Amino acid sequence: MSVAARLYDQHRETLDTALKAVRIRDHWSPFRESPSAKLHGEEAPRLGKSRFEAQLGKPFDLEQPGTIGTVGAEVSPYTREPLGITYPKSDPAALFAASRKAMSGWTKASVEERAGIITEMLFAMERNAFENAHATMHTAGQGYVMAFSGSGANALDRGLEALVYAMKAMQDVPETASWTKRFLEPEPVSLKKRYVRVPLGPAVVICCATFPLWNAYPAMTANLMTGNPVIVKPHPTGVLPVAMAVRTCREVLEKAGYDPNLVLLAADEPMDQITIRLLEQPDCRIVDYTGSQRFGTWIENNCPGRLVFTETAGCNSVVIHSANDFGRVAHTVARAMVTFAAQMCTAPQNVFIPRSGVQTPDGIIAYDDAVETLVSAMDKIAGDNTLGPAIAAAVQADATIENVEAMTRKGEAEGNILRRSGPVSNPDYPQARTASPVLIECDPANEDFYGEERFGPVSFVIPVDSAQEGVRLATSQARTRGAIASYLYSTDESFIDAAEPDYLGAGASVSINIDRGMPMNFMGAYSDYHVTGLNPAGNASLTDLAFVAPRFRVVQMRRPG
Amino acid sequence: MSVAARLYDQHRETLDTALKAVRIRDHWSPFRESPSAKLHGEEAPRLGKSRFEAQLGKPFDLEQPGTIGTVGAEVSPYTREPLGITYPKSDPAALFAASRKAMSGWTKASVEERAGIITEMLFAMERNAFENAHATMHTAGQGYVMAFSGSGANALDRGLEALVYAMKAMQDVPETASWTKRFLEPEPVSLKKRYVRVPLGPAVVICCATFPLWNAYPAMTANLMTGNPVIVKPHPTGVLPVAMAVRTCREVLEKAGYDPNLVLLAADEPMDQITIRLLEQPDCRIVDYTGSQRFGTWIENNCPGRLVFTETAGCNSVVIHSANDFGRVAHTVARAMVTFAAQMCTAPQNVFIPRSGVQTPDGIIAYDDAVETLVSAMDKIAGDNTLGPAIAAAVQADATIENVEAMTRKGEAEGNILRRSGPVSNPDYPQARTASPVLIECDPANEDFYGEERFGPVSFVIPVDSAQEGVRLATSQARTRGAIASYLYSTDESFIDAAEPDYLGAGASVSINIDRGMPMNFMGAYSDYHVTGLNPAGNASLTDLAFVAPRFRVVQMRRPG
Repeated sequence: MSVAARLYDQHRETLDTALKAVRIRDHWSPFRESPSAKLHGEEAPRLGKSRFEAQLGKPFDLEQPGTIGTVGAEVSPYTREPLGITYPKSDPAALFAASRKAMSGWTKASVEERAGIITEMLFAMERNAFENAHATMHTAGQGYVMAFSGSGANALDRGLEALVYAMKAMQDVPETASWTKRFLEPEPVSLKKRYVRVPLGPAVVICCATFPLWNAYPAMTANLMTGNPVIVKPHPTGVLPVAMAVRTCREVLEKAGYDPNLVLLAADEPMDQITIRLLEQPDCRIVDYTGSQRFGTWIENNCPGRLVFTETAGCNSVVIHSANDFGRVAHTVARAMVTFAAQMCTAPQNVFIPRSGVQTPDGIIAYDDAVETLVSAMDKIAGDNTLGPAIAAAVQADATIENVEAMTRKGEAEGNILRRSGPVSNPDYPQARTASPVLIECDPANEDFYGEERFGPVSFVIPVDSAQEGVRLATSQARTRGAIASYLYSTDESFIDAAEPDYLGAGASVSINIDRGMPMNFMGAYSDYHVTGLNPAGNASLTDLAFVAPRFRVVQMRRPG
Repeated sequence: MSVAARLYDQHRETLDTALKAVRIRDHWSPFRESPSAKLHGEEAPRLGKSRFEAQLGKPFDLEQPGTIGTVGAEVSPYTREPLGITYPKSDPAALFAASRKAMSGWTKASVEERAGIITEMLFAMERNAFENAHATMHTAGQGYVMAFSGSGANALDRGLEALVYAMKAMQDVPETASWTKRFLEPEPVSLKKRYVRVPLGPAVVICCATFPLWNAYPAMTANLMTGNPVIVKPHPTGVLPVAMAVRTCREVLEKAGYDPNLVLLAADEPMDQITIRLLEQPDCRIVDYTGSQRFGTWIENNCPGRLVFTETAGCNSVVIHSANDFGRVAHTVARAMVTFAAQMCTAPQNVFIPRSGVQTPDGIIAYDDAVETLVSAMDKIAGDNTLGPAIAAAVQADATIENVEAMTRKGEAEGNILRRSGPVSNPDYPQARTASPVLIECDPANEDFYGEERFGPVSFVIPVDSAQEGVRLATSQARTRGAIASYLYSTDESFIDAAEPDYLGAGASVSINIDRGMPMNFMGAYSDYHVTGLNPAGNASLTDLAFVAPRFRVVQMRRPG
């Protein structure tokens, strides 16, 4: 029995359960989400940390073809010290040549063999979850728990989800068929047909700075499962977690007897980025992009002949019409704004509150009181000595702090500063680059200000004549500027019903009345379709059939028989 | 019970069987392929013909919004007389406005209701099969039998096939889910989720001159099933069959209580074509194109933000290594070259024959003898007084005749004319524009001549040093210039096995040793994947999940419950 066949046997139940999970769409995961020592013992967390620390200042051990030097310019958002790690610098043409060469052997692996190997990659990456958490903290700036779960189990789940979708699409094509038809002659004709699922060709997976792996895993598994080799291009400020993932995938491939060059790293530095050079390679056939809307749109428009999947960013809104418990609503929204300094693609930015106030069972909460409740919830969360730094984590880039300052100045000129951004002191990392959100009150007509994504801890309250007006503005901005997550609070079913067509028309998924027990912007694999692909926040969804089916095609052989 | 629900009940068994058929991929059809009076009686054929004739010289009865005049410039390739039919000339913006408006009601129809209505459209179109056959003959130039079956039942089958693929993709998304997960708090969170399948938006379906409906039906059903309204743009020389189809779809929609503007006609004339104006409409979200490679590639590269599906053309090859019965091979290839004057996208163009001859059980047939056998097979088929005109049918455009003349002159200069093109006299239509194929012997190195599609009855024999060289040239041209169908003849299994990777690498589907009982280039719905999407002959396949899945997306609503 081949290694690949054994891996398939070993992971078969996981794969079957994942296939059921994407049908039922209830919560499920084969990965461990919590870093608790109760689950992992005392040793694993320590080992992960020490492995990360041992890597600092050293060349990253990754041998791959086409190496023409080294790169490496990462700086920890927590310590503000360079990580000092160097990675192979690669010649794009050599990467594609190695990719193309690796593809031919992989084409011969069956669907089951590929699925076994790729699932093994995911579990192998999980075994590095603690080391990955530290690597993610010190590149992306995420907090420890998010780095462990959100960039660990939750991201691996998205990888497994895309893998089983790709399996499903592949298995929709039978391997053979017998076909018999009578034409004009009395004797019918019989043909044997064979259907070969052929991959499109090498894929470039472009990762973003703040969530290096959450989108990369599904793109990698979808491509590998459909037969396409992957060249992973990390953000230059967040190479380490990606390099670790690439190395793990290569090890698994090698052990299973396949060419490790099916997964390659294309690292670069901020001042000399190679993304466009990769996309220009004639052999680049697929692009999976996560990052800014501007570059995403450029890729969508400038890569003819390539299959392009994008997840970019949007102008996420909260419309508050009424609430059973406004305090909880304010707390939930405030927490999502503070979390990871609003550097998540699902973080809310714009809160629409009726000037006439928020209806509750205990009467109307006046607009000013509602705003005050929101501000004090933000103050409380960001100011909590223990929780504050854990939740707010670190700001990945200096440019984000500059943006907060610029938006504050603009807010002073064009609006009203309801709450100022400030540092969130972190006792473990006194040098950490931190910021709590600025909250700006902005006139609904000033859409040029609040009506586009303002990346990082920048948020707005927009006083509207009615919640209906809020819905109208929020969905019109989603339609024209993009939105990844929208939030609506109302106790009035007829209001919700009436709002729904606006959200549908904007291609904007909406969370309604989530005010307890979970982060409002948590997106669950196997259940939540992430990004609709229907507005400028991206053209792809994690995960639907459209995300996987076009990555391979069928070539058929038919002959009498 | 609504009309739509009743239609679903009525067609449920057909839909279920079609869903099974695309899994098993054996021959199947719910439509009647033969025009025989034994099946249809004497009246139906007569009625179809008289209805067609009654339409000549009159305005086509089609009321739709945005009409700003009339167009109509069709000329029968058989009689060379203008059809004299006029169609509404439409304002592109008004068509899109009507489309968009129609979409909202259609979004509310369930998957089953849509499937019932669209299947009813197909059967309603079948009821016009005889009239459609005459309309297709006198626009596309097809022969009567092909116009009845190939542009009737066979085309409707492709429509039904795409419909059930779209159903399958839609049904992969559940309508609702319950999701329960424990976060940090002891009490788990439960959310109810609703998944709404949202169409991308209006689609433009661009039809070609020689097969007006074969690709249009699947594009129309795939779009309608996924919720997208359709604006059908016929080739200006072949409006009538398309206008009839549009009218039938509109009638079925209206009877079922839906806005008929879900299907609209955008007719034009050769000197004032509106395709680009349609594609430029901001509301155009999907393009389904069939036609020339040049315009197809232009659309692929110049419609950012639109989902583009193309089927264009390729340089189809026949490689002859060896044969059990070379006479049958020559007859089969010759017949496919004569059929409909090689205006089918699967017609073979280039025949590679080893200079050392063709191996057979009775010894080697010398190259010159093989060529002579092929030429006399062509002469025999084209020269047969009864079969010849029925098979060769008519040449759709003057430009095609001019191309045959130009290629003949080029062949005289750069190659060797093995057989000259000539008229195929048609006793029923003495004025018919007809041509049998020119056959040119061309040096294998002269790829600029034979190595691209030369539309119409233009074919080549390329003497090669070995059949292996033939495979190498044929597949390299398929990869760089496109191929829709490739043909290989060999009695040596090791030769076939060795050739296979080259065809796979070129994304070229290949028919092996088909030498009797059926036209070599017949493509069966529910069984043959038509066009791979892997080379310049098009980016789409009829029909796979990639053809349907990206046409809609999921917008989700989630809330506690």
